Amino acid sequence: MSVAVLRLGHRLVRDDRTTTHVALVSRAFGCKKIYMTQVDDSILETIGKVCDDWGGSKRISLEFGEEKNILIVIGASKVPKEVYSIADMNIAVGNQPHSEIAALAIFLDRLYRGKELGYSFQNAKMKIIPSSHGKRVKIRKLKKSS
Amino acid sequence: MSVAVLRLGHRLVRDDRTTTHVALVSRAFGCKKIYMTQVDDSILETIGKVCDDWGGSKRISLEFGEEKNILIVIGASKVPKEVYSIADMNIAVGNQPHSEIAALAIFLDRLYRGKELGYSFQNAKMKIIPSSHGKRVKIRKLKKSS
Repeated sequence: MSVAVLRLGHRLVRDDRTTTHVALVSRAFGCKKIYMTQVDDSILETIGKVCDDWGGSKRISLEFGEEKNILIVIGASKVPKEVYSIADMNIAVGNQPHSEIAALAIFLDRLYRGKELGYSFQNAKMKIIPSSHGKRVKIRKLKKSS
Repeated sequence: MSVAVLRLGHRLVRDDRTTTHVALVSRAFGCKKIYMTQVDDSILETIGKVCDDWGGSKRISLEFGEEKNILIVIGASKVPKEVYSIADMNIAVGNQPHSEIAALAIFLDRLYRGKELGYSFQNAKMKIIPSSHGKRVKIRKLKKSS
């Protein structure tokens, strides 16, 4: 199964953090690509840095193109009416106003049945070691050829 | 069960949208209170407007106080070390960097076993009518005394 995310709209500055969160959730929960129409350089830098440190580079590519299988469409600003009728499925995560970040996460969590919570990525420099108290991060240096 | 959320840190402008999302997820997923140390007036206005339109006013109060039962602590910026040792439970939602908004949503989703997705709130002016295509919102006028 290949899952991609289409992020519609991005209001400069105002949406920088939410768009970054959308990209991070997409990556961490196993999506292959995230498509955006507009994007700030700082978001690309943040995602690039996360892939450098935590692995899985090239799993998120910010471009516009075609992809088979599932494409999840989420808005920053209001989603145009056409999208609702073009979509094969119109999925609501609850019936209250909340967050497209939360909705994306819960949809992917249900889709992968929780398996995404154990994902690890290749070439990671950093890894979390589970601990009941405190925060343990394992850091390793990688050879450039690896 | 009473669940509250403690949002640590809030970087002005930069975190406005993510903090708003945290508050919206907390409300939509049934949390009684959200505690914050700093908050922008625009966030209070957004939450107030959501409660006016979608009901459940007074379920979210932005203040600092004491609460029994579960308190979920989430950071905007880095969470101070002390918090990890003070906490009764140190819960990781996956082991990858993603989003505190997504982590909060998935934690609450597991906690409430999906029941939160059907929540409705009293005094709602607006209600979503599920539909396979399109978006249907039912709007009703409320008497001031109700």
